[in-house]
Amino acid sequence: MEALVYNGPGKRAWESVPDPTLKVPTDAIVRIDTATICGTDLHILKGDVPTVTPGTILGHEAVGTIEEVGSAVTSFVPGDRVLISCITSCGRCRFCKEARYGLCTGGGGWILGHLIDGVQAEYARIPFVDTSAYKVPELLTDEQVLFLADILPTSFEVGVLNGRVKPGDVVAIVGAGPIGLAAVLTAKLFTPAKIVVLDVADKRLELAKSFGADVTINNGTEDAVARIMELTGGLGADVAIEAVGVPATFELCTELVRPGGTVANVGVHGHPVTLHLEKLWIRGVTMTTGLVDTFSTPTLLKLIAQGRLDGTSFTTHRFKLSEAMDAYDVFGAAAETNALKVVLEGEKTQLKAKEELAGAVA
Amino acid sequence: MEALVYNGPGKRAWESVPDPTLKVPTDAIVRIDTATICGTDLHILKGDVPTVTPGTILGHEAVGTIEEVGSAVTSFVPGDRVLISCITSCGRCRFCKEARYGLCTGGGGWILGHLIDGVQAEYARIPFVDTSAYKVPELLTDEQVLFLADILPTSFEVGVLNGRVKPGDVVAIVGAGPIGLAAVLTAKLFTPAKIVVLDVADKRLELAKSFGADVTINNGTEDAVARIMELTGGLGADVAIEAVGVPATFELCTELVRPGGTVANVGVHGHPVTLHLEKLWIRGVTMTTGLVDTFSTPTLLKLIAQGRLDGTSFTTHRFKLSEAMDAYDVFGAAAETNALKVVLEGEKTQLKAKEELAGAVA
Amino acid sequence: MEALVYNGPGKRAWESVPDPTLKVPTDAIVRIDTATICGTDLHILKGDVPTVTPGTILGHEAVGTIEEVGSAVTSFVPGDRVLISCITSCGRCRFCKEARYGLCTGGGGWILGHLIDGVQAEYARIPFVDTSAYKVPELLTDEQVLFLADILPTSFEVGVLNGRVKPGDVVAIVGAGPIGLAAVLTAKLFTPAKIVVLDVADKRLELAKSFGADVTINNGTEDAVARIMELTGGLGADVAIEAVGVPATFELCTELVRPGGTVANVGVHGHPVTLHLEKLWIRGVTMTTGLVDTFSTPTLLKLIAQGRLDGTSFTTHRFKLSEAMDAYDVFGAAAETNALKVVLEGEKTQLKAKEELAGAVA
Amino acid sequence: MEALVYNGPGKRAWESVPDPTLKVPTDAIVRIDTATICGTDLHILKGDVPTVTPGTILGHEAVGTIEEVGSAVTSFVPGDRVLISCITSCGRCRFCKEARYGLCTGGGGWILGHLIDGVQAEYARIPFVDTSAYKVPELLTDEQVLFLADILPTSFEVGVLNGRVKPGDVVAIVGAGPIGLAAVLTAKLFTPAKIVVLDVADKRLELAKSFGADVTINNGTEDAVARIMELTGGLGADVAIEAVGVPATFELCTELVRPGGTVANVGVHGHPVTLHLEKLWIRGVTMTTGLVDTFSTPTLLKLIAQGRLDGTSFTTHRFKLSEAMDAYDVFGAAAETNALKVVLEGEKTQLKAKEELAGAVA
Repeated sequence: MEALVYNGPGKRAWESVPDPTLKVPTDAIVRIDTATICGTDLHILKGDVPTVTPGTILGHEAVGTIEEVGSAVTSFVPGDRVLISCITSCGRCRFCKEARYGLCTGGGGWILGHLIDGVQAEYARIPFVDTSAYKVPELLTDEQVLFLADILPTSFEVGVLNGRVKPGDVVAIVGAGPIGLAAVLTAKLFTPAKIVVLDVADKRLELAKSFGADVTINNGTEDAVARIMELTGGLGADVAIEAVGVPATFELCTELVRPGGTVANVGVHGHPVTLHLEKLWIRGVTMTTGLVDTFSTPTLLKLIAQGRLDGTSFTTHRFKLSEAMDAYDVFGAAAETNALKVVLEGEKTQLKAKEELAGAVA
Repeated sequence: MEALVYNGPGKRAWESVPDPTLKVPTDAIVRIDTATICGTDLHILKGDVPTVTPGTILGHEAVGTIEEVGSAVTSFVPGDRVLISCITSCGRCRFCKEARYGLCTGGGGWILGHLIDGVQAEYARIPFVDTSAYKVPELLTDEQVLFLADILPTSFEVGVLNGRVKPGDVVAIVGAGPIGLAAVLTAKLFTPAKIVVLDVADKRLELAKSFGADVTINNGTEDAVARIMELTGGLGADVAIEAVGVPATFELCTELVRPGGTVANVGVHGHPVTLHLEKLWIRGVTMTTGLVDTFSTPTLLKLIAQGRLDGTSFTTHRFKLSEAMDAYDVFGAAAETNALKVVLEGEKTQLKAKEELAGAVA
Repeated sequence: MEALVYNGPGKRAWESVPDPTLKVPTDAIVRIDTATICGTDLHILKGDVPTVTPGTILGHEAVGTIEEVGSAVTSFVPGDRVLISCITSCGRCRFCKEARYGLCTGGGGWILGHLIDGVQAEYARIPFVDTSAYKVPELLTDEQVLFLADILPTSFEVGVLNGRVKPGDVVAIVGAGPIGLAAVLTAKLFTPAKIVVLDVADKRLELAKSFGADVTINNGTEDAVARIMELTGGLGADVAIEAVGVPATFELCTELVRPGGTVANVGVHGHPVTLHLEKLWIRGVTMTTGLVDTFSTPTLLKLIAQGRLDGTSFTTHRFKLSEAMDAYDVFGAAAETNALKVVLEGEKTQLKAKEELAGAVA
Repeated sequence: MEALVYNGPGKRAWESVPDPTLKVPTDAIVRIDTATICGTDLHILKGDVPTVTPGTILGHEAVGTIEEVGSAVTSFVPGDRVLISCITSCGRCRFCKEARYGLCTGGGGWILGHLIDGVQAEYARIPFVDTSAYKVPELLTDEQVLFLADILPTSFEVGVLNGRVKPGDVVAIVGAGPIGLAAVLTAKLFTPAKIVVLDVADKRLELAKSFGADVTINNGTEDAVARIMELTGGLGADVAIEAVGVPATFELCTELVRPGGTVANVGVHGHPVTLHLEKLWIRGVTMTTGLVDTFSTPTLLKLIAQGRLDGTSFTTHRFKLSEAMDAYDVFGAAAETNALKVVLEGEKTQLKAKEELAGAVA
C-alpha cells in the first residue's frame, strides 16, 4: 500500500510500504477512508518529537472501514465504519479503568503515528480496537465525525471540562487556531454567559466570531487584561483556556482569570513558564494540564448525531489521500492558505461522493 | 395599603390592610411593582397548606423597589430595583452557609405568603433582605426577571441540577405545566441530546415544543415507557424529571429511567407512592427531592442579561395589581383559559409602560 | 473436578463435573484456593433467583491461581495469584467504560455462579480476566483479600460512596449482617463523627461495636427515630445506609435521614416499599440504589496492603473446599451458629497453612 | 485595655489602647480568653505585609467570650464562648454565598490583625459576628478548638480538600511546620494509604511521625523524587501538598506528583516559581492555590467534639496574654525553641485553670 512516511526531520514522502497485518488477537486492520493532519504532525516533521523514529507512517485522526479483526475482537466486524481516535486504550491498566486513556500504561495512549504506524495511509493496524475505536452511525458522513478523532474531545476535555465551564460563566479562550475554535464550539455546550476569544491575528478573531465567540480581543494590539476586567466588573474571567502553547499566553491566562477561577492549559508547551505564585497563592486559582483521554467521544458523537454540535466548519481544504504531500504543503502554510483542517479522502470516499453527486443530478 | 388576603379555605379578598413596617434591622420595605401567582397559592386557597393562617397576604414572587431599609442592611438603598424570591435566607444557619436556603433554620426558607405576609400587595416587608433579594440589572424589564422568583430556579435546581443533566443526555420531563416547561428551558443550558416531554394534554405538549422539547409523548394515550425505550435503544432516559406531583407520574419516572440514571422529583406530592425496589435495587438509580434553594438565581440572572435564557414566554395574561382577584380567576381556570403565568402590574409599572408607549408613538 | 452444584430449589450437591476449559481468547482458567459463600447463594437455593438454571456451579467470591490463559490475555500468566470478584467486566461496553461494571452490557456484570458456572469448585473459567481479576500482592494472605470479592466493595460503593459519607457526618447503618458490618468498616475510611448501627438482634449490635460502631440501637425494642433525633439535635442522620432488604428498614431510613441527607440502599429487595413523598418532596433527600461495580477494589486492596483496612474479622468458620456442604449448613443457620462469613479452603491453601504451622512450630 | 500593637517594621509593643466599641449593628465585642500567634504575624513584623498600617493590633486566632452584640446580631448573646477565625465573612457577597469567605468582597476576608485591629488584646471588635464566629461546645476547652482559627481549616481546605485526598492515596506533604503537620492530621481523615512528609530538618520529621506520617524524607540530604518514585512503583504521589512557600518546594511538588495527580499549594509565596510546562502539559496535573475559606470549620469542630481530631499537640508553650512580648520572642525563634504554636491565656482562662487545678487537688 501507499502511506505518508516520516523519514527524519524535514523529510516526508508518500511512498510504498508493506500492508499492515494483525499482530495480536485484539488488533484490527482498517481501510482508511478519510483522514486529516494535525499540528502535531508538523511538529514531528520539524524534529520536535524525537520519540518518532524515521520510517513511521504519520497520522492519528481518521475514519475508516474494518477489513479484518483479531480473534479476541468482539465489538466490530469487517465492514463496520469506525472512527479512529488519536488515543488508544488498552482498557486494562489502572488509568484506562479510570477513563484516563491518555495516561494508558498498558500499551496505549498516543501511539498512532507516534510510536507505531499511523493512519495517513491506505490501511492501518489499530491495536486494542474494541476499546479504542467507535462505530459511526449510518446517517453521519465521515467528515461529520472526523474531528472527533482529536480536536473536539481535546478542547472539550482538556479545556472545557478541566476548566469546569458552567452556565453563566465568562470563558476566555486564548488562541483561535483549530484547538481554540473547538474550545469555542464545545464551551457552548454549557451555555456560558460570554465567550471571549483572544488572538494576535484579526483574521482568526473573525473566524472565532463565526464559531460563536461573543467578544474578541487582539492581544497583540489591545490591553487584553484591561478589556477582560472591563467585561467582568473588574473580577476576571471564570475560566481561561490556553490554546497556544507559549509562555506568554499561559501567563496571560493566569492574569485574566478571576479569584477562584480556573486556567485550563490545552497548548503543547516547549518551554517553562514563570508562575507568579507571589500573586496567585492567595487567589484560589486552579490550573490544569493534560492530554486528551477521549472518554467524551461517545457523548460528542451523540451530540453530532442530534445536530447539537457541528465540526464540519473546520474543513477548509479537501484532497485525495494520495495527494497527502500537497495537503501537508497547504496545511503547513496556514498563515497564507488560511487552512484550518485539511481533509484527505481515500478512494472509497471519493467514489461514494461521486455516486451521490450523480444521484443528486439524476 | 391594599393586598390579596387569604381569609381561610376558599376565601380570598383584595382588601385594605395596614402598611408593613420595619421590624428588625435586617428588614427592608419594598414597593411591589410586578408580581405573579403560583400554583402553590391555589393550593393554599383550597386549604391544602394548613400552616398558612387566615389573614395572611399571599404571594412569593415579585419585582419591586426598595422603599426603606433597616440599619443593618448594606446591600441595598431606597430606589434599588430588586427581585423578591420565594425563598428567604437568614444567611447564618448551617443550611444557608451550605447554600441550601430552602432548608434555612434561622427564620428563612419559604416564609413569604406562607408564614408571614407575602408580596401580592402594594408593599411588603422583606426579612433578611441582604441575603434574600437580588438587584435587577438596569437593562432588564421586571417581567424578564420575574420568573426567577420561583419557577426558573426551581426547575433548574430541583430538576436539572439534581438530575445531573449533562451534554448528550436524553432528558424526560413528565408534566408540561409551568414547572415542566421551565425544566425544558433550563435543561437546554446543558445541551442534552434530546428533551422528551410527557403530558396528558396535547395542548400542553404543543407548548412544550415551542419551549424546546424535541419529542413529545401523550402518556394518557400512548405507551410512554415503550416510546422512551424506542428512543433510547431500549435503555431508558438518562434523567427523568417529575413535574406533576401525583403517584402515577413519579412511578412512571422510575420506569422510564435507564440503569444508572436519575429521577429528580420537582412535583409537590400529597400522597405516598409505591417504589418498586424489588426492581430498582439493582438498577443503580438515584432519586432526589427538594424545595428550591435559589442559589442559582445569580447565575440565571446573568444568562437572562446575556440573552441566553428568556422566561418571558411564560406570561399569558397581564392584570393591574389591583385586579388580582380577576387574575386568580383566570389563573385558577388554566384548563379553560390556557393561562401559564399571569402578571400583576403595580401602578409604577403601568405608568412606566404608558410612558414607554407614548415615547414609542412620539 | 468437583464442585458445589445447584440442582434446583432446595437442592445442592458437591459433585463431579467436567473440568472447565478456555472458550474464548479473553478467558482464563483459575484454580480455586479460597472461596466463600454469600447470602445471595442462599437466595438462589431457595429458588428466589430464577435466572440460575439447575446444574450451575455456585459461588462468586474467591482467590485462586491462574492455570491457563487465552491468547488475548495480557495481564496475567499461569501461577499468578488472583482475586476473583463477583462482577465480571467486559471492559468494552459503555457502562464498563464509565466504571459501572455492575451494569455491563457486554457479557459481564454478575454472571459467576449465576448465568455461568461459579467458583465454589476446584477450578473455574473466568471470562474477561484482564478486566475482571486482580493480582494479589505477595505479602497478603488469601483470606486478607477474600472479602474484596463482594462485601467490602459492595458496602463501600453502594453504601458509603453512594451515601456520600464525609468527615464529620452521622452515619446510620440499618442492619448488622456482613453487609452492614462492611459498611461500618468502610464508612470509617471517611472519618464520620458517629456511626450508629441499628439491628433487631442484640448479638449483632455487640458485633457492630467491635467493628467500630459508636452507638447501637435495637430497632425492635427502641424508638429508633427518636434515638437518632436525640443524637443529632433533632435533625436526623446525614447518611442512612439500608443493609437489610425489607420494606420496613428502607422506610425507617427515610424517616431517620436529615433534610438534605442521603439514603443509600444496599439491601436486596423482594417487595415494593411505600415512599412517603408527601413528606419527602420538600426535604431535599437523595436516595440511591445499585449493585456493586467493583471499581473501588484496587483502592481497597491498597488500604488492606497498608494495614488501613482489615476484613479478616468477618471469618467465623473455616472448612475444606470439599466440605462445602457442611459450610452451607453452618452459614445457612447463621442465627444459631453466629456465622458471619465461612471460608472454604482448597487443597493448596490447606497445604500451605500446614507448612506455615510447621514452620512456626519449628 | 492592653494589646499587642504593630508599630512598623521590626516594632511591636504590649501597650495601652482604647477599648473597642460596636460600630455597626452586625458587630460584637469579644473578650479574648485564649489566643495564639501565626507565622503571618512574624511576616507582618518584618514589614512583608505593607497593607498592615502601624498602630494595628495583631492577631487573627482566638477563643473568647461575647461581651456585647449589635442590634442585628441574632446568633450570639453576651456570655457565649466563641471561636474567632482568621477569616471574616460578610455573608452577603457573591463569594460568601459560594462559601468562599476568603475571597469576600463585602468587607470580610482576612481583615483581623491585618486591615482592622486583631485579637492579641484583652478585647476585640468582631465584624459580621453572625457569619464569622462559631459557638464553642461546652465540653471543649479553649485550647481544643483554638487551632480551628487558622491552621486546621487552612491545611484541610487548601491542602487536603483542594488536593482531593482520597482513601488509598499516597500523599506527599512538603514542609513539617505547623501547616504541614496540620495537613498530616487532616489528611488522615480520608485514610490515605501512605502519608509521606518531606522537610530539611530531621527534628521536624520526627515530629511529623508523631503526628501520623508513615514515611519521612529529608529533602536536604536525600533524593526526594527518587524516594517517592520508589515508594509508588515509579508513578509519583497522588497528591503533593506544598506547605513551605518557596520556589524550590513548589517545584519539587510538581516533580514528585504522579500523572493525573494534584499539587495543592498552601505556602505563602514571595517570589515567582518556574513551572515546567514543557514536561507538565501532557501529565494531566492539577495545581491549586488559595487562602482558607473556613467553610470546613463546623465540620472540624464536630470531629474535635467526637474525639476524631485533636489539635492540642500543636501547643509547645503557654504564656499569659500580658506576656505576649515573650511569646513572640519564643515563637519567632522556633529553630532554637522548637516552638510550634504558643498559647496566650487571658485572665479568665488562667483563673479557670487555677480553679480546676484546685478542684483536682481537692
